[in-house]
Amino acid sequence: MLNYKRYKRVPVLNYPKREWPNKEIQKAPIWCSVDLRDGNQALIEPMVVEEKIEMFQLLLKLGFKEIEIGFPAASQIEYDFLRELVDRNMIPDDVVVQVLVQCREHLIARTFEAIQGIKQVIVHIYNSTSTLQRDVVFNKNREEIKEIAIEGTRLVKKYAKDFPGKIILEYSPESFTGTEVDFALDICTAVQNEWQPTPDNKLIINLPATVEMTTPNAYADQIEWMSRNFKDRDSIILSVHPHNDRGTGIAATELALLAGADRVEGTLFGNGERTGNVDILTVAYNMFSQGIDPELELDHINEIVEIYERCCKIPVHIRHPYAGKLVFTAFSGSHQDAINKGVRALKERKSKIWEVPYLPIDPSDVGREYEPIVRINSQSGKGGVAFVMDSYYGYKLPKAMHKEFAAVIQKISEEQGEVAPEQIMDVFANEYLHINEPFEFVKVKVEDVGDTDTHADLIFKYKGEIISVEAVGNGPIDSVKRAIRKKTGIDTKVLDYTEHAMGEGSHAKAAAYIQILDRKTGNATFGVGVSSNITRASIRAVFSALNRLAKKEQ
Amino acid sequence: MLNYKRYKRVPVLNYPKREWPNKEIQKAPIWCSVDLRDGNQALIEPMVVEEKIEMFQLLLKLGFKEIEIGFPAASQIEYDFLRELVDRNMIPDDVVVQVLVQCREHLIARTFEAIQGIKQVIVHIYNSTSTLQRDVVFNKNREEIKEIAIEGTRLVKKYAKDFPGKIILEYSPESFTGTEVDFALDICTAVQNEWQPTPDNKLIINLPATVEMTTPNAYADQIEWMSRNFKDRDSIILSVHPHNDRGTGIAATELALLAGADRVEGTLFGNGERTGNVDILTVAYNMFSQGIDPELELDHINEIVEIYERCCKIPVHIRHPYAGKLVFTAFSGSHQDAINKGVRALKERKSKIWEVPYLPIDPSDVGREYEPIVRINSQSGKGGVAFVMDSYYGYKLPKAMHKEFAAVIQKISEEQGEVAPEQIMDVFANEYLHINEPFEFVKVKVEDVGDTDTHADLIFKYKGEIISVEAVGNGPIDSVKRAIRKKTGIDTKVLDYTEHAMGEGSHAKAAAYIQILDRKTGNATFGVGVSSNITRASIRAVFSALNRLAKKEQ
Repeated sequence: MLNYKRYKRVPVLNYPKREWPNKEIQKAPIWCSVDLRDGNQALIEPMVVEEKIEMFQLLLKLGFKEIEIGFPAASQIEYDFLRELVDRNMIPDDVVVQVLVQCREHLIARTFEAIQGIKQVIVHIYNSTSTLQRDVVFNKNREEIKEIAIEGTRLVKKYAKDFPGKIILEYSPESFTGTEVDFALDICTAVQNEWQPTPDNKLIINLPATVEMTTPNAYADQIEWMSRNFKDRDSIILSVHPHNDRGTGIAATELALLAGADRVEGTLFGNGERTGNVDILTVAYNMFSQGIDPELELDHINEIVEIYERCCKIPVHIRHPYAGKLVFTAFSGSHQDAINKGVRALKERKSKIWEVPYLPIDPSDVGREYEPIVRINSQSGKGGVAFVMDSYYGYKLPKAMHKEFAAVIQKISEEQGEVAPEQIMDVFANEYLHINEPFEFVKVKVEDVGDTDTHADLIFKYKGEIISVEAVGNGPIDSVKRAIRKKTGIDTKVLDYTEHAMGEGSHAKAAAYIQILDRKTGNATFGVGVSSNITRASIRAVFSALNRLAKKEQ
Repeated sequence: MLNYKRYKRVPVLNYPKREWPNKEIQKAPIWCSVDLRDGNQALIEPMVVEEKIEMFQLLLKLGFKEIEIGFPAASQIEYDFLRELVDRNMIPDDVVVQVLVQCREHLIARTFEAIQGIKQVIVHIYNSTSTLQRDVVFNKNREEIKEIAIEGTRLVKKYAKDFPGKIILEYSPESFTGTEVDFALDICTAVQNEWQPTPDNKLIINLPATVEMTTPNAYADQIEWMSRNFKDRDSIILSVHPHNDRGTGIAATELALLAGADRVEGTLFGNGERTGNVDILTVAYNMFSQGIDPELELDHINEIVEIYERCCKIPVHIRHPYAGKLVFTAFSGSHQDAINKGVRALKERKSKIWEVPYLPIDPSDVGREYEPIVRINSQSGKGGVAFVMDSYYGYKLPKAMHKEFAAVIQKISEEQGEVAPEQIMDVFANEYLHINEPFEFVKVKVEDVGDTDTHADLIFKYKGEIISVEAVGNGPIDSVKRAIRKKTGIDTKVLDYTEHAMGEGSHAKAAAYIQILDRKTGNATFGVGVSSNITRASIRAVFSALNRLAKKEQ
């Protein structure tokens, strides 16, 4: 049994004055990618310089304006990478690079060496402030911990004085989620007093869920409490940096935005230490799916996946929101049916707003395809099979026919598992289109005689023998039916008939679906015919149905 | 650019009276696994019967008391699987199987055939109630949709009358998250009125986030509103069935529990349509990590992963909370250092409560190992290297030595990427233990003479030549040092010395760490010696340091 008694409830803030649950997300925050720092440091194989450059270029392309590139004072590789960016002139003017550094003079000095020549830099200092870390790691009291942060601020100020570019200070009380809010506020305010930010020259206060410790509403309470208790809130950019230890990093971010956060640090696909950082892409796509401009260029998700997987050597899971291979796939028949109807309604109504059951967004909006939406397996209903025939191959099977054809596919899928669209089409062709025994249509000449009658001059094969016959009926199908009865004695009744164009213009073909009852046996079946000539398509359909009836009797 | 204007904000309930944000999770809900239904139906290769049976047995072992096994009326495979469970007598008395069925008589009749011989069954009926589905899929108004649910209830009642076992009804207004709450309440109440549940014979009302459409707080508002507006709330088990389209399924579940939900339907590792169902394991482990009994037997997560991956043919992602391969791995040096100190403090204080920075739970509590916690790469600090040497090999390097050895590893990792613990130990051995040029220790005899002096009779090799020498000092190290100076002229000073036992009892060895300064060159280095004899260990350490000094001069 799980030894749950070894753990204790993390104390949460009692904050009934919270306002965030009454709010909705209205706009995108400032995004800061930490892929090259938090993300990279958690890789089994960290990126080499060329991979870092590819990742940096991807981040620029996606529209990130703030990018943490590493900890140049702590690692020669990160130092060299930053210099490479500078030397190759790769940092656009509207992009701010961010460098992480501890509150120690030799590291801050080295950091300022690393950033020489850059126009704007966020220097990100931090120290751990949680009760646990104060106690077991640093063995320091609140005042001593606060002094570290003040000293760090002072040092950045000192080195910034002679720096030719613009320095923006970011301070993180690391392990904020394990820190008492009053102390977190106290230490942030101390940094604020030392740095003296203004509304034009803001200080970034970043409140990390270094370890996700509570339900996301408790984090939101902490964020709102901080946001409302800062002095000179206008001089502060309130940033969050959520991790995902409880699997609720995305929710924590969204609720923190409701609670007043202005800025989000995270990574693509939630890469990062342990369970990862918050996945910025999902947060952004969630906004997009609600009609909010995410202020990132995310229209080609497959390309993002491809570069990410190559540089990080970490797969994107098949159920990852928006990006996973299976997330635009509907397996259940009722889902497929509803999607089918939803898409049709959208077209009919010429609606500009996307609203389709089970598909929160149109996959094509993020560069994905409709094709993989439907996979037919033994769980799929008839709607799914019909959807595949329509959306992949243009055959709009009449509703009465769905059950008949779906039963064929259902049987196959119960034996083999999933059935690919190609196989469904193959089966359809074998069952309906390429069935030439015992009847084979050869040629027909139809002529209208008088107002209501049609005369058919039909040539067909029956059990290998060529037969030529004429008959009159009330239309082409009726006259062909009668002609056949004359020669074979088979008496049929048409139960259903539909026909539709496939494709457009002069290359268009017609597909006809005819359901025929054999009066003698009582069997009924559909037949399908395709031809560029609409009459011939329906006659082929009659032959298809006759052959299927003959097969049933065997 | 993303065409966000195609999407509209999902309207959320205005519910300022909500109480859930003031609450904390206190106990486990009723868990219902839908792995064999929602999970299975979303697999590329659905489970075959033997795999279903293995999964069913795993679910029993984990302690699930309610298990949805499928849709027996819709699929022969699911029908056969259920009969197999009955025929093989595999359903324990305290476990209730659940079967899904639409509100249609022939399907309900077939379902009752399928469940013959089972003692207790949850018959789970559903119909889609969202505005969108009413409109585009069913083309029915509220009253007509409500009639479907009432008719379904009536039918279950009818067939239940003659059923020898116990029938529990579950009703789901499918696509609840897209349904107006007043209509959802109306339809659920209609089912309630028809079924007439009592506090002893409760009705399960399941409110699915069939598609996750909003931030999780908005779902919680819907749940609390429903919970507080049901009539005869005591007669209802309020169940939730969250999906994960926005990546916030776990959060939605947790907030729904705060909002009054009694029961959770979900799957292992969040398998299920599209982005999946809620991952019950993570919700349960989250409770566990807060000292709440999750009422599931989850102590062997690797085994769960193994069976799951085999049956479902879906990988568990390396960053999946609690289960992923990397989630108990710390790459960053400062994290490793803090973990190191946290674990040490825990031991020293003999604390029964787990509290270690960056490790929300003790991995061994879920059957995972400490070993993979630390991987050294170019991002790791000196603390990480020291942690590996201590926790893997028992060498407690003195703090002053961390930097010296970590620099060696840092250099390697910058060239090759990650460095495995074995390689760290190899490097340590080559750098400190197996270094026998130009000095090689052969033999020593130490005797205390008088109160403070020690006489050493030392034999060693220097540049291949055997040297025998005697000297007196204020202890073994000092006398050996002096003996060496006599013969080689090398004048050294001991800067630091520590020694500790490795292992216990008669097999224990001692490891000695001596930092020595060469007075002439000003170079200093550590040397390490290991021996079952504590004196010999320290003398070996002196020789190790001398050889390292000699190497530095080359």
